[in-house]
Amino acid sequence: VHIPFSLPRFEPEEMKKRARDFYELVNKRRSCRFFSPDPVPRDVLEQCILAAGTSPSGAHTEPWQFVVVYNKEDRLAIREIVEDEEKVNYERRMGKNWLQDLAKIKTTFVKEYISDADCIILVFKSPFHYKNGVKHNNWYYEASVSISVGILLCALNNVGLVTVTSTPMNCGPAIRRLLGRPEHEKLAFLLPVGYPANSATVPDLHRKPLDKICTFI
Amino acid sequence: VHIPFSLPRFEPEEMKKRARDFYELVNKRRSCRFFSPDPVPRDVLEQCILAAGTSPSGAHTEPWQFVVVYNKEDRLAIREIVEDEEKVNYERRMGKNWLQDLAKIKTTFVKEYISDADCIILVFKSPFHYKNGVKHNNWYYEASVSISVGILLCALNNVGLVTVTSTPMNCGPAIRRLLGRPEHEKLAFLLPVGYPANSATVPDLHRKPLDKICTFI
Ligand SMILES: Cc1cc2nc3c(=O)[nH]c(=O)nc-3n(C[C@H](O)[C@H](O)[C@H](O)COP(=O)(O)O)c2cc1C
Ligand SMILES: Cc1cc2nc3c(=O)[nH]c(=O)nc-3n(C[C@H](O)[C@H](O)[C@H](O)COP(=O)(O)O)c2cc1C
Repeated sequence: VHIPFSLPRFEPEEMKKRARDFYELVNKRRSCRFFSPDPVPRDVLEQCILAAGTSPSGAHTEPWQFVVVYNKEDRLAIREIVEDEEKVNYERRMGKNWLQDLAKIKTTFVKEYISDADCIILVFKSPFHYKNGVKHNNWYYEASVSISVGILLCALNNVGLVTVTSTPMNCGPAIRRLLGRPEHEKLAFLLPVGYPANSATVPDLHRKPLDKICTFI
Repeated sequence: VHIPFSLPRFEPEEMKKRARDFYELVNKRRSCRFFSPDPVPRDVLEQCILAAGTSPSGAHTEPWQFVVVYNKEDRLAIREIVEDEEKVNYERRMGKNWLQDLAKIKTTFVKEYISDADCIILVFKSPFHYKNGVKHNNWYYEASVSISVGILLCALNNVGLVTVTSTPMNCGPAIRRLLGRPEHEKLAFLLPVGYPANSATVPDLHRKPLDKICTFI
């Protein structure tokens, strides 16, 4: 069954204003790696995750799972898993070029933010699902989950929460087991969520101007 | 160099309201495949693409390129490329299970929206870039570009524009050549942009409730 679809229309001037306001809002977003311990209201996170769940997905497979960890003990265990792997990543797996590219960001294998932020969101992606015992592929599941994370970042930013979009290499299976998640869920992102520490800093990066990312034909 | 970072803080009640409002806004988004020919203001699209360009990216590589095609002749040529490939995709490449999963959405190889909408945005992803003649990898370029598309979808939705997140299989090289884009840019998404036709319909899909996509620990 198909149903009628429409959206509220705005006048061109109103569209322009809304577009500018949204750009100004998201342009304030930065990846933050230094957190204050202030509490993150759970009901706010619920609305943000519901927003992420409105993402499009290949053939409407909704291949995402968001696990929010407030529990400090679990976060300390996750931090240990991540730091143990990241130590090997930085020392042996990433290679000279990658480390050079990261030098300006000044990241290391130490991940205080996993225990310092009030909570973390682990985003899992599923390559397939079962329906009545039959295995179904989740078409384009990687793109779908990343798009939903893009929406999640907007939702968090919109309420004044910060995060860093991190991808802890090789940590998926150990974290999945620690949290008792099913085998077909693969860890895609680890997002600490909270407020910047008073002393928080970010690398002085700049974003490409419009003419470097966009062409009109 | 690192610089201080902070964001405006909101009271918990205000956070909750903003979170709810954002969810309600994005929850109105649907993939629309039937367009009115009404014009899409270019300056609005520019702001939406600037918003997409604020996306995080692996080691700040910004591996995206947005090509907006208003030109009708080019869009007709692109539609022809896509329909020729999609005919083969639907008839031979996608297989029984995939077609079954798409049946409820009722898509076919015919893509009127490429010529009916006022414009399309082609999103390209680059696995690497050159700096002073030296080749640099764009770490996590696929995830980065998909996250930026998630932000773009929020930006479009926020101004009352609709799209469908489409991924034309096997059409990348021909479209890249048609548009004269460099070889290292790979087509990731084709997004028609405009307003729903008066008669537009969407499949009567439902989204998973919070407890099916989210766990709190
Ligand atoms: C990665 C990805 C690829 C998609 N590819 C196509 C496509 O090629 N053609 C199409 O009509 N829809 C495509 N879609 C749209 C989905 O079918 C749509 O998001 C899903 O049915 C849910 O509907 P909604 O977006 O209205 O919530 C794609 C979506 C995603 C996220
Ligand atoms: C797919 C992806 C993976 C990333 N992985 C990490 C990571 O593992 N650790 C980290 O500290 N930052 C990570 N980042 C954050 C980037 O370094 C950051 O987005 C970039 O430097 C631009 O800074 P900004 O987000 O403040 O604009 C990642 C970002 C993306 C999109």
